[in-house]
Amino acid sequence: MRVKQLATLEPREIRAMIRKGELVRPTAGMAKGYVQGNLAIVPKELAYDFLLFAQRNPKPCPILDVTDVGSAEPKLVAPGADLRFDIPKYRVYKNGALADEVTDIASYWRDDLVAFLLGCSFTFETALLSAGLPIRHIEQNCNVPMYITNIECVPAGAFHGKTVVSMRPMPANQVVRAVQITSRFPAVHGAPIHIGDPAAIGIKDITKPDFGDPVLINPGETPVFWACGVTPQAVAMTVKPELMITHAPGHMFICDIRDEELAAL
Amino acid sequence: MRVKQLATLEPREIRAMIRKGELVRPTAGMAKGYVQGNLAIVPKELAYDFLLFAQRNPKPCPILDVTDVGSAEPKLVAPGADLRFDIPKYRVYKNGALADEVTDIASYWRDDLVAFLLGCSFTFETALLSAGLPIRHIEQNCNVPMYITNIECVPAGAFHGKTVVSMRPMPANQVVRAVQITSRFPAVHGAPIHIGDPAAIGIKDITKPDFGDPVLINPGETPVFWACGVTPQAVAMTVKPELMITHAPGHMFICDIRDEELAAL
Repeated sequence: MRVKQLATLEPREIRAMIRKGELVRPTAGMAKGYVQGNLAIVPKELAYDFLLFAQRNPKPCPILDVTDVGSAEPKLVAPGADLRFDIPKYRVYKNGALADEVTDIASYWRDDLVAFLLGCSFTFETALLSAGLPIRHIEQNCNVPMYITNIECVPAGAFHGKTVVSMRPMPANQVVRAVQITSRFPAVHGAPIHIGDPAAIGIKDITKPDFGDPVLINPGETPVFWACGVTPQAVAMTVKPELMITHAPGHMFICDIRDEELAAL
Repeated sequence: MRVKQLATLEPREIRAMIRKGELVRPTAGMAKGYVQGNLAIVPKELAYDFLLFAQRNPKPCPILDVTDVGSAEPKLVAPGADLRFDIPKYRVYKNGALADEVTDIASYWRDDLVAFLLGCSFTFETALLSAGLPIRHIEQNCNVPMYITNIECVPAGAFHGKTVVSMRPMPANQVVRAVQITSRFPAVHGAPIHIGDPAAIGIKDITKPDFGDPVLINPGETPVFWACGVTPQAVAMTVKPELMITHAPGHMFICDIRDEELAAL
């Protein structure tokens, strides 16, 4: 099925196809207008510290839903869905190292696991595009550039680390509008955390992102930096949890809630 | 010292007076422009469920800070402060029953306690007043009327219960403005959860609040309902925790952050 058709399907229709193994590909553009979420699954033992870390760092770690211990159902954002099957591709980490990449996690599921769904920038990018602002990595058909900054997250228990940001260049006369638009969506990273000089937040070379792909910054454009959902995964990994499961990059969970439902205003 | 003088002092000056026992009284009006918070202390054993409950119910339970286990320092909102001493009056509950009312909790403190500071409506009331909107219970010099609604909170672990709301009557032509102003403050209950007919949210008699005092609703005024910070305390109490410590009503913790720092926009 083409992406254009997938854009018009309902989230539960997409998830049903994913569950049947018919749709093993990145979810960008599917079920247009609906929220997509990052997945992070950790044992209950680590869940309190992880939840507290997210609470203390809401910009990089905006929580959409947390399952009950041992349950794979995200009751708030997609009742009836099953996080063991409804994501196209997963990554399984053991003691901080990638151990497996799979299309379902039934064999890894345990009664002590807690699944976190975290907001993703797709939501605010939709809002930026609707307002006519450019998203360079979409224009260039590549991944968004991401950078490790020198901005320390507020630590919580075992978890600590630097904030990772994503960058989108904006024409100078659109920067204020970009701030306004993304401020409406605190549940998905919200307003930028930095505008302008990359060095001010510890980025040495803007042409060399730590993750994703470099994008063109045209003359007259200002780099604008948003807190990035890679942060919680990167931070969780530093404590080398015995088991941690995430979505594979770009292969997100599609929720039943609409982007606009997350707007604060 | 008069309230007018106390309004001009810095939070740390007020807290120092409280710590010395010089200021055992409600904190309304003190350190004007600074955030005041509700306190709820529970054993670590319950902290995860309580944190998750707050995460799932951000309107009644907006979290300002959570201390590390065994620490009484709210590092995010008042570094250096001590929650064992810096609130004028505390209530100690054992197995869900009020056991003591004290001016410090040093003798009750334990290494397994976690302190939660939750947003309070003082912040958005300041914003409403600044915009010229009336706050009836301040005009009548009484406590805000609070009601138990039929709106179920999203449960988390052992915690479940109905949402408690506070009510402020607004002139019909100011209701929209009241929504706009309080929408800016999601960290302190945010926008109203109901406007108009009390029966629609299960309130039988608007003249008989479940907590606080009744206030006058003038002809042409609409009751406007906000989620209330009494909710988490009421909910926590239903599970009868072996130990729970809260502030005494009206005797809040004064933070170092300003009301305007909590504005989303």
